Amino acid sequence: MKSFENFEYFTPTKVIFGKNAEQEIGTLIKTFGAKKVLIHYGGGSVTKSGLLDRVCASLTEAGIAYITLGGVVPNPRLSKVHEGINLCRREQADFILAVGGGSVIDSAKAIGYGVANDGDVWDFYEKKRTASACLPIGAILTIAAAGSEMSNSSVITNENGWLKRGYSNNLSRCKFAIMNPELTYTLPDYQTQSGCVDIMMHTLERYLNQSGNMEMTDGISETLLRTVMKNAKILKTDPNNYEARAEVMWAGSLSHNGLTGCGTDGGDWASHQLEHELGGMFDVAHGAGLAAVWGSWARYVFHDRIDRFAKLAANVLMLTPTDDPTQNALAGIEAMEAYFHSVGMPTSIHDLGIDLSEEQIMTLADKCSFGCTRTIGIVRKLDTEDIANIYRMAK
Amino acid sequence: MKSFENFEYFTPTKVIFGKNAEQEIGTLIKTFGAKKVLIHYGGGSVTKSGLLDRVCASLTEAGIAYITLGGVVPNPRLSKVHEGINLCRREQADFILAVGGGSVIDSAKAIGYGVANDGDVWDFYEKKRTASACLPIGAILTIAAAGSEMSNSSVITNENGWLKRGYSNNLSRCKFAIMNPELTYTLPDYQTQSGCVDIMMHTLERYLNQSGNMEMTDGISETLLRTVMKNAKILKTDPNNYEARAEVMWAGSLSHNGLTGCGTDGGDWASHQLEHELGGMFDVAHGAGLAAVWGSWARYVFHDRIDRFAKLAANVLMLTPTDDPTQNALAGIEAMEAYFHSVGMPTSIHDLGIDLSEEQIMTLADKCSFGCTRTIGIVRKLDTEDIANIYRMAK
Repeated sequence: MKSFENFEYFTPTKVIFGKNAEQEIGTLIKTFGAKKVLIHYGGGSVTKSGLLDRVCASLTEAGIAYITLGGVVPNPRLSKVHEGINLCRREQADFILAVGGGSVIDSAKAIGYGVANDGDVWDFYEKKRTASACLPIGAILTIAAAGSEMSNSSVITNENGWLKRGYSNNLSRCKFAIMNPELTYTLPDYQTQSGCVDIMMHTLERYLNQSGNMEMTDGISETLLRTVMKNAKILKTDPNNYEARAEVMWAGSLSHNGLTGCGTDGGDWASHQLEHELGGMFDVAHGAGLAAVWGSWARYVFHDRIDRFAKLAANVLMLTPTDDPTQNALAGIEAMEAYFHSVGMPTSIHDLGIDLSEEQIMTLADKCSFGCTRTIGIVRKLDTEDIANIYRMAK
Repeated sequence: MKSFENFEYFTPTKVIFGKNAEQEIGTLIKTFGAKKVLIHYGGGSVTKSGLLDRVCASLTEAGIAYITLGGVVPNPRLSKVHEGINLCRREQADFILAVGGGSVIDSAKAIGYGVANDGDVWDFYEKKRTASACLPIGAILTIAAAGSEMSNSSVITNENGWLKRGYSNNLSRCKFAIMNPELTYTLPDYQTQSGCVDIMMHTLERYLNQSGNMEMTDGISETLLRTVMKNAKILKTDPNNYEARAEVMWAGSLSHNGLTGCGTDGGDWASHQLEHELGGMFDVAHGAGLAAVWGSWARYVFHDRIDRFAKLAANVLMLTPTDDPTQNALAGIEAMEAYFHSVGMPTSIHDLGIDLSEEQIMTLADKCSFGCTRTIGIVRKLDTEDIANIYRMAK
């Protein structure tokens, strides 16, 4: 048996979870010493729902000045980040309040780095430099998916080349995360289900690895996956089910705050890298993109870690094991794809409405391997050719 | 179905987990701005093992001054806390490094409150005042049990009346916790098993409640309980098993950092209150004291929450449910007691080597109910008479 890896676990974000959790936002943000807040948000839903007005009123009541910047899109863009950096500098904002989902929080993190460091913020996402500071950030979460409210990571798309790149640094962890499941009631089903896949994948990426595995971590991961799958199904027909929304929302944070990786080698993350290129080129919903490639990735690599795929089949898909581990592993992959279908998620790139040409596959593979300069994945290290093969399988 | 309670979750402690985790203590403590550190510890084991010398050397190498205060005993005492407060003030220590188990960390927290606030520190434990600050604290853990390294709570015994009282405040949460499972190899089996019961009870107290219960929280709690029970048994015959020590150590932190209470009403805690009085009067090992009273408490109250006790029986003790929930609940309690016995833990106060007189029972019940001014517990609210009844059952 391989022993566990040493690990660090650091989740300083204060979570305020439940009904009306956003009510005291003004008072709360004051405890962090904020004097002028950039309220950062996405599309019209936080305006239409009245949430933005309530947040502004609460800040005013607490005597805190604010400015606003909306218009963050899914797969948030570098140009908006630059706009936010300039605005914060001009207005001397000292705190960023992200009101939205992962895209908005990720954009806020990038703005936070940009304001607190000299030079181009994109350098961090290109791994050319390490950020030495970040403006403090808080979040009011309206989409359960990315886990950015408790994670140290953010993903930004540079329109110049449509490069989607992630950067992880504990400096950007939110000071607080306000999580009211009721704020997610109005999400369309496709977004809800896509979010649930994203949540599952943050744990799956860590669960499928090449390390020793703590029973504590595996048990938490398995219960998280089962809980999300069960409650995602409930939300298909009952989107205003508070308990189901709450289970999914809390699972979303726990799935990406580091808890499900404790003692592991960090996990695989190849599916995420494969999806990042798709998302950069085609602007697909992140979770749907993950569902579209996961099964092909899994079939391509599972021989290198049959025991883990078989464990997934038994403890998450609840399949009765046979004597043949290979068959068990494959049955688990099939069952996971069947689950994705059952909640309206794709299991191929074609299902996303995209028909990839061979040229596009080669472009994706080239970008995903940073021009043949890196491999991705841990279950199996995948080079440019492997990556192209998986895109072909997932086509 | 009852809905979940709103909750806050705040675990800012940076965990550094694994082999040799203590090696860089000097460098680490420097990042928290410490200039003069009080190294606080218990008995001779950290001296004998050489750990204390290594810690001192690492601090010196990092250019950090320190003073030391040892002699903390299990059920740590207020007199030692006062000694630490006076020493810190005299020497102008600005950071406390606890090297030991829960008693040492609890003592460090009390010293931290005492130094940072005027007046008598015991006021906080008597709930007469609220602390407004606490000296920063870090921990090098050598006993997996209390979970104090990630919790906001501490328990101190006032020798004047032998009152054992707890106080919880986020200000005292450790800045970091260094957790090297190898440092727990030398623990005698009785202390190891007592620690494991303590870990289990921090989750059990929260699991058995009167609230709605999140599937996420229940799943994590159940996996934690199963993992501790399995690995505690391994440690009985193989105390130097790294993986088993690691599972137990990590479970110890997760069990008391708040994770296993998310969405609940906070849990019952009557068993803890019952044990606190025993511990104050007789100085028993905390976990052993909990094991001694738990079964009697459970039999006394389980009718008020048969479904939860039955769930415990099915998902933790892994008993096949019958059609009779009462029978299932009782079978679970019996199985838990059988487990305690199997690892050499007591299931009665007599097993602790204590034969309670009726007068002692009345004294314990009076102290536990704060002189008939409070009830304890949530599964059933217990008054002085109930408390005396349970001590009699547990006798």
